[in-house]
Amino acid sequence: MEDYGKGGIQTFVCLKISMHNNRYVHGYSSREAERLIDQAQTLTDLLHHDTRYPSGSRVLEAGCGVGAQTVTLALQSPDAMFTCIDCSVESLAEAEARVKKAGYKNATFQKADIYNPPFAPGSFDHVFVCFVLEHLPDPARALASLRAVLKPGGTITVIEGDHGSAFFHPDSRYAKEAIGCLVTLQREVGGNALIGRELFPLLSGAGFFEVVVSPRMVYVDASRPALVEGFTKQTFTAMVEGVRKKALQRGMISEPEFEQGICDLYRTCEPDGTFCYTFFKATGRK
Amino acid sequence: MEDYGKGGIQTFVCLKISMHNNRYVHGYSSREAERLIDQAQTLTDLLHHDTRYPSGSRVLEAGCGVGAQTVTLALQSPDAMFTCIDCSVESLAEAEARVKKAGYKNATFQKADIYNPPFAPGSFDHVFVCFVLEHLPDPARALASLRAVLKPGGTITVIEGDHGSAFFHPDSRYAKEAIGCLVTLQREVGGNALIGRELFPLLSGAGFFEVVVSPRMVYVDASRPALVEGFTKQTFTAMVEGVRKKALQRGMISEPEFEQGICDLYRTCEPDGTFCYTFFKATGRK
Repeated sequence: MEDYGKGGIQTFVCLKISMHNNRYVHGYSSREAERLIDQAQTLTDLLHHDTRYPSGSRVLEAGCGVGAQTVTLALQSPDAMFTCIDCSVESLAEAEARVKKAGYKNATFQKADIYNPPFAPGSFDHVFVCFVLEHLPDPARALASLRAVLKPGGTITVIEGDHGSAFFHPDSRYAKEAIGCLVTLQREVGGNALIGRELFPLLSGAGFFEVVVSPRMVYVDASRPALVEGFTKQTFTAMVEGVRKKALQRGMISEPEFEQGICDLYRTCEPDGTFCYTFFKATGRK
Repeated sequence: MEDYGKGGIQTFVCLKISMHNNRYVHGYSSREAERLIDQAQTLTDLLHHDTRYPSGSRVLEAGCGVGAQTVTLALQSPDAMFTCIDCSVESLAEAEARVKKAGYKNATFQKADIYNPPFAPGSFDHVFVCFVLEHLPDPARALASLRAVLKPGGTITVIEGDHGSAFFHPDSRYAKEAIGCLVTLQREVGGNALIGRELFPLLSGAGFFEVVVSPRMVYVDASRPALVEGFTKQTFTAMVEGVRKKALQRGMISEPEFEQGICDLYRTCEPDGTFCYTFFKATGRK
């Protein structure tokens, strides 16, 4: 399965960790780097501040990728035990190294299929899924499979973006069309870049109850320069730029239109521009 | 000037007040009515909970309309003194009656032009503007005029919606096109239905400093039935339906497409639907 967008949104979430590991060397001045760290922390807080698991609880992180969220989970719930699965052994190796380097010992990693998690029914107190459902052809089936390994009364937490939630000033038809290419390409490989808005029906439909959805908007204007740089430019716009080749190859949009769209996204980073994007965090109980 | 949308968004904000005045008689059962009151309070809290003025402060409410916000202001800051202006004597009469009926004595009303407020420079400690700039051909000039009557160090608070912030599940091209008709029609009469996202550059450009913008998203799903009814249906969809005649007369959209758009907005009110809309609240200092 091709992977549009996951890297993009995760880039920023990973940023702080990577910088702390001295691996982020894109030439920022130390003052800029510090602001980026602060704002990456802002985004981490926005998404994760209210995810805390009790001492001794068993938590399944489904689709841990390279461990960007795992580090935050392990930090915030040091006495919970995390079992992290992913379909990619390469990602798992990176995740394990990242968590080890950060000094956490409460996470284990194993290759597994999210549709068939190799655990007995009721094995976990909690399940955590972040930036994963958007890439799955059948998120409802994944949620049902995850529900099966959750004990009765256990909770699921799901975080997803929604690329259709992006709006900005100055408004631009071309920027919207370029974003539309990303959404269409992700749909063509079985994903759904608009899944954030669907979390309520997805969790309810999978049999979870007490489903509560909490939108988390990233709002960017010139008074938040590190979000301009780190989110609007390096995360969102870079992600849209990433589909240029495929979008043009398939004739989804003309090259001048695509370039104008990218140009207009950068335009929102000027002092009089603004940019909005919404993540959705949902919780439910078995 | 024609007025698209103001009535719509204000409908819901007015709802609680009107119901308390026993003037809202659309046939709800008392249980439904109670939920609507609760949720109208939710929206009032969302927008206004952090607007409080100190005892003795002089506050200008510019564009008070029928007094929907005035009642909340007077309630929350009982020892501040409000001067409320509007261009419509009919609205002012209704606002005055509303505030009197609610038992508040700390607001006075007078007809005035927002571009030329008839007050000496520095007359006010604070200025409050809600759902007004979206209707003005020159919001920047209005902000400059309001800044002039503010004392140095005084604050301005601006609240506006943004119809382009609406997104929903199931997604629908027709619904977006119907909303687009409302946006275009409002633009044709000199307004801007996408003004929420522009508050930062507008306030900064008018010379205010310490400008802080706070987005306030109304998120609606089946777990919030009174918002489904009171916001998605009776406020937003009703507002879009309100431009049917004009949009069709001008050939902006075909009748079947418009009807499909409205139908698709109602579709988001089904148990598996969701709806998102963002208001923007901005503050700045002179």
